[in-house]
Amino acid sequence: MAVYTEIGDDELRAFIAAYDIGAVLSCKGIAEGVENSNYLLGTEQGSFILTLYEKRVSPSDLPFFIALMDHLAHQGVACPTPVRAKDGAALRELCGRPAAIVTFLQGMWPRRIEPFHCARVGAALARLHKAGESFAMSRLNDLGLGGWHRLYVACASRADEVQAGLAAELHDELEALENAWPRHLPSGVIHADLFPDNVFFRDRELSGLIDFYFACTDAFAYDLAICINAWCFEPAGDFNVTKARLLVSSYRAERPLSAEEIAALPLLAQGSALRFLLTRLYDWLNQTEGALVRPKDPLEYLRKLRFHRGIADPAAYGIDP
Amino acid sequence: MAVYTEIGDDELRAFIAAYDIGAVLSCKGIAEGVENSNYLLGTEQGSFILTLYEKRVSPSDLPFFIALMDHLAHQGVACPTPVRAKDGAALRELCGRPAAIVTFLQGMWPRRIEPFHCARVGAALARLHKAGESFAMSRLNDLGLGGWHRLYVACASRADEVQAGLAAELHDELEALENAWPRHLPSGVIHADLFPDNVFFRDRELSGLIDFYFACTDAFAYDLAICINAWCFEPAGDFNVTKARLLVSSYRAERPLSAEEIAALPLLAQGSALRFLLTRLYDWLNQTEGALVRPKDPLEYLRKLRFHRGIADPAAYGIDP
Repeated sequence: MAVYTEIGDDELRAFIAAYDIGAVLSCKGIAEGVENSNYLLGTEQGSFILTLYEKRVSPSDLPFFIALMDHLAHQGVACPTPVRAKDGAALRELCGRPAAIVTFLQGMWPRRIEPFHCARVGAALARLHKAGESFAMSRLNDLGLGGWHRLYVACASRADEVQAGLAAELHDELEALENAWPRHLPSGVIHADLFPDNVFFRDRELSGLIDFYFACTDAFAYDLAICINAWCFEPAGDFNVTKARLLVSSYRAERPLSAEEIAALPLLAQGSALRFLLTRLYDWLNQTEGALVRPKDPLEYLRKLRFHRGIADPAAYGIDP
Repeated sequence: MAVYTEIGDDELRAFIAAYDIGAVLSCKGIAEGVENSNYLLGTEQGSFILTLYEKRVSPSDLPFFIALMDHLAHQGVACPTPVRAKDGAALRELCGRPAAIVTFLQGMWPRRIEPFHCARVGAALARLHKAGESFAMSRLNDLGLGGWHRLYVACASRADEVQAGLAAELHDELEALENAWPRHLPSGVIHADLFPDNVFFRDRELSGLIDFYFACTDAFAYDLAICINAWCFEPAGDFNVTKARLLVSSYRAERPLSAEEIAALPLLAQGSALRFLLTRLYDWLNQTEGALVRPKDPLEYLRKLRFHRGIADPAAYGIDP
């Protein structure tokens, strides 16, 4: 949860006047999105989300994110559509920060994951991958192997503060993944952060995907592995094979997976678990006083990592070969 | 800013089904209100605010607050109106907490206070006082003199951590106020916390008052003194006589002030400054780790307190006798 920036009255009015969306009726900071400041904006024409990009998002990446949402929305993916100002610009500036207005999506993200959620997410992820194939831009995954190495170096000396032996385990894991990582899987635009709080539902139907600020160009199956981690473990830590089976089979119904992609899933899931373990560990060790965000438990992802390390065959995920 | 409670999907659906407001389309935690968890609720019938009352609000006070908002709204005061469930109850339970739905007010609270805001607030405060005269319930001000004494006792031993000599200054101030406090001024329902973030505007017009969770029965002029503190000091700390003059004259145009009320204003403003100084000091000294609320600076109110202590005559506020 995060609202970092307080917007002045006159600044907001002047900013909104550059759009064709009517006058502002209300503007409330909302407790969604950890990286940016988000406001629910009510205008004479309806509801919108106003986002101010705070320092964790690189300004040079913003044109990619904005163009991607625009592209996906036009391809029929239910996602926020950037609203252009009268001068045609979707990315502008407010309070000294890059800022954008996107359309508001109805729906709520599920707090308790049920199997049907996983089925819907699998299908939506595959459709997202297909819709992105005609997108011309690309963006390196800065939280891929190279990024994990940088995070490991930044955390290694203090990792054992969180759990004894953690630094050594991370070192060995990283080395194993660097040696075995599959580098030639089908790739394209991936969401890279499709956790439950980024997926909205209305009743049992998926109504939209949000938060494309980790989207990048990488292996499609890695995105699926991220979803296995994010959607298929129960709160107590046990792996729910029914959910994984539904997630993957719904994906495959929209976009078939090759034998190489399926065979790589345990390794990709290890890598994905390591990615979230490392970013959470970094945030845990670098808490800033007065921050409004409670850091998430890194050890949740150590447990997931160990689970995947123990998987010899993708069939253990409930996946048909 | 505060969202303390995460509401489960099924719980929310079941809760909303007891009302006649249509199905839920969205529900977002909003960064307003420090004491409670607030959600902007979108339903098929429009926008509402859902509030979960967290532990700082006493459950036994809730019927007073709910009935007061109901009464004021029916008297024409622009304020949130409690929405009754099909069984007639406005105060219910969600996630093990007392909960209520109120109507959504358009408008935004002003970030930069201009003189016209003060004029509008003065008039609205007087109308609120008049509308409350026909309200049958009453509630003791637990942050009046007795409350200040309790807060002082709780903070005294550590007050000098914030500023050297603060404990002694608070002791003397409290003693002086206990001796001189006016006890027979015209009284009734007061808001008791009418800070800028509790007053919404659309352009130059006041569109509503919110957050009645400190409302109580006390001297009307004390409420006005709270507004003098909340609205008439510039961010750098200097007192803006133009704003005070507008605030008080607009109040008097709606509800005349007696000579006793005017004469008491410097003392009431001292007391009001002490009240916010003490609650902020208490919060400052009792920060809980992981809290999502940044405590406000208590010393802002020490400076205001000293300013009022130096006022011999209400004319110094720009007020005509």
